[in-house]
Amino acid sequence: MKPFDDVRLRGFSHRTSVSDAWDWIDSHCQLLDEQLVPLSRASRRVLACDITSHVDVPAFRRAMMDGYAVRAADTRGATPSNRVTLRLIGHVFPGHPFAGDVAPGEALRIMTGAAVPATADAVLPVEQTELVGDQVCVLGDVPPTKNVGDIGEDVSRGTVVLSRNRCLRPQDLGLLSSIGIAGVPVVRQPRVRLIITGNELLPPGATGGAFQTVDANSPMLRAFVERDGGIVVDRAFLTADDPAAILAAMEDSEADFVLVSGGSSVGAEDHAPRVLATHGELAIHGIAIRPGSPAGMGRLNNRLVFLLPGNPVSCLAAYDFFAGRAIRGSAGRDRGWTYSRRQLELQHKIASQLGRVDYVRVRVTSQGVEPLSIAGASTLSSTTRADGFVIVPAESEGLPEGSSVDVFLYD
Amino acid sequence: MKPFDDVRLRGFSHRTSVSDAWDWIDSHCQLLDEQLVPLSRASRRVLACDITSHVDVPAFRRAMMDGYAVRAADTRGATPSNRVTLRLIGHVFPGHPFAGDVAPGEALRIMTGAAVPATADAVLPVEQTELVGDQVCVLGDVPPTKNVGDIGEDVSRGTVVLSRNRCLRPQDLGLLSSIGIAGVPVVRQPRVRLIITGNELLPPGATGGAFQTVDANSPMLRAFVERDGGIVVDRAFLTADDPAAILAAMEDSEADFVLVSGGSSVGAEDHAPRVLATHGELAIHGIAIRPGSPAGMGRLNNRLVFLLPGNPVSCLAAYDFFAGRAIRGSAGRDRGWTYSRRQLELQHKIASQLGRVDYVRVRVTSQGVEPLSIAGASTLSSTTRADGFVIVPAESEGLPEGSSVDVFLYD
Repeated sequence: MKPFDDVRLRGFSHRTSVSDAWDWIDSHCQLLDEQLVPLSRASRRVLACDITSHVDVPAFRRAMMDGYAVRAADTRGATPSNRVTLRLIGHVFPGHPFAGDVAPGEALRIMTGAAVPATADAVLPVEQTELVGDQVCVLGDVPPTKNVGDIGEDVSRGTVVLSRNRCLRPQDLGLLSSIGIAGVPVVRQPRVRLIITGNELLPPGATGGAFQTVDANSPMLRAFVERDGGIVVDRAFLTADDPAAILAAMEDSEADFVLVSGGSSVGAEDHAPRVLATHGELAIHGIAIRPGSPAGMGRLNNRLVFLLPGNPVSCLAAYDFFAGRAIRGSAGRDRGWTYSRRQLELQHKIASQLGRVDYVRVRVTSQGVEPLSIAGASTLSSTTRADGFVIVPAESEGLPEGSSVDVFLYD
Repeated sequence: MKPFDDVRLRGFSHRTSVSDAWDWIDSHCQLLDEQLVPLSRASRRVLACDITSHVDVPAFRRAMMDGYAVRAADTRGATPSNRVTLRLIGHVFPGHPFAGDVAPGEALRIMTGAAVPATADAVLPVEQTELVGDQVCVLGDVPPTKNVGDIGEDVSRGTVVLSRNRCLRPQDLGLLSSIGIAGVPVVRQPRVRLIITGNELLPPGATGGAFQTVDANSPMLRAFVERDGGIVVDRAFLTADDPAAILAAMEDSEADFVLVSGGSSVGAEDHAPRVLATHGELAIHGIAIRPGSPAGMGRLNNRLVFLLPGNPVSCLAAYDFFAGRAIRGSAGRDRGWTYSRRQLELQHKIASQLGRVDYVRVRVTSQGVEPLSIAGASTLSSTTRADGFVIVPAESEGLPEGSSVDVFLYD
């Protein structure tokens, strides 16, 4: 019989509060350094610095519609019954300036986006004209500057167009393009090493194994990491319940973060906390949350290490409460929840314990929201049947039926 | 002077309503066929069919915590002052069954995830015991089934675990993994060909060009297409204002959709509508919306073609109202708006025209929401300064100050 002498099997003597764990995360996770990415890959990335335009957009006075470049004064008083006639002197297309001026009494056919000559001050819409030979009959007037895009009207040189920490939207990329920025300075994506421990585990998607369990956590964690702006380091995830293998993974120099799933508790085979405490710092171990209480966190070299329970629902909750918060923060994103919220009426009470945060899977119904009755932390299907979750705060002993609660919606 | 004889410069004789354009899109965009992708790339993809589990999860009776596998009846009445003693017969770790039974009066040390022998019916938490030699002192009782995960408790064989059209969440991937699915049948991503027309245009991120404009639309459209679940076909985007080049792009057999930016109106250089009408079907041209009215749509072979105005804000609005709707739909996603909404009080009135839908950029303030005063459809910076937009419906002549409006928030 294998000896259990060194086993600390007595459970956690102390559980850290969720808010203290958040404080630790917020004071230890650092914004990553910057990298340049091409515009085509900058969507949803976070700007690392303010972007100042060094150009005017437009850089020239631009026709805003198809029509005639004119002197506005020449059209004054024109109506369908009181026509003014101008002489057509040519045309100008976008990309090529007109070699000449528009003198009084003259009109220049102009297309949207073309440069308006300096001596013209308006573009007369073609709908307000009739062309007879080289005579442009004006049927209505235009005021000065009408339909002319001024220099710098969109962006003027020297303006800060986008500020650091901006999560880039599609239109932001258009704007950056228009001011001549081909490489965008963004916060580097956190690189995350995943380790899934457990001698009983089979790789994702495997079948068979009468007494084995297929790893559900690595596909789930990868998707969470990517959602939060990180990238998963390309390594095999499954690791034996072996301290040396776990240490090697925690020391992966490619990684900004290490997430260890499984073996996070205080049992004989729970090596990860001891490895971290021995070779680095196990700052927090055991958190007052359900599910997910065996979670822990600490540091090894400059890397933040998160210990996540192996039970999939606990793993999910511990990721989303703690590891995800750190990854989002270091990616320059909002550290808070990524989910949209809705206030709904609770259809059945939720019991909880004072001092413990509960993560309660719920279903949204036509009447409000109801907690799912669930067997335990290993029932991952409860999170796929759920529409979202409700958080019962530590200060609360539960939420009564009929109360209005904030529901975080899975998307 | 270049002749303008064939020019239809009179503007649109008729503008289609937004709701009629949506009807056309909804009746012409088809859900794409299915493809298999690995679990690691299935996040946010849309399931092409129902997924039925062919296995039970767990496949065996599983210990849910570290402790002792026992016969629950043996622990009945045990308390700290009324201890029951069981004989330790061995241990069992995850992945390896115990070769033997648990007889009355016996206890088997068991770790989370290990198989519970058939003759044991509960796991006694280690916190409720004291070990003295090979004697396990029981300090509290456990009822039958306690801390034992039953066969099929998470997923039972034959259950539909996820239904078609589901946009896959991180936990869904975990569940699929646990039932042995390594390749996930998902809706194929729409392939979108972008064509940016305009002789005056410089490629994205370029500088210089006194009378030229840098293409802002292709980086913006690419990001929108990716947001909506599509992928942009890898081709050069910039195309001369040349009917043959535009036709060649519209005939790209790689593409499910073609988006043509620029040259969508009724001017001399607006070739795209004529090309589409000549070689395919120009179903709609000119829409009662501002900005974006020169938009159009139709078909060429089996491809949906969207004509988007070249002005960036018009392009944005026409994409989001029309092309994006079709792309989202064919990707199996919700065709409607992707933005989150908030009801806010309007701080200044918005004027509009009966019969026309207005897309109004707004800023969210501490008091509510205010429309941005904007120069025109070419001022892309107005959409980067805005926090979102308000839609003024066709039935409305505007929205009065103080009214409560739905604000769509850019994310």
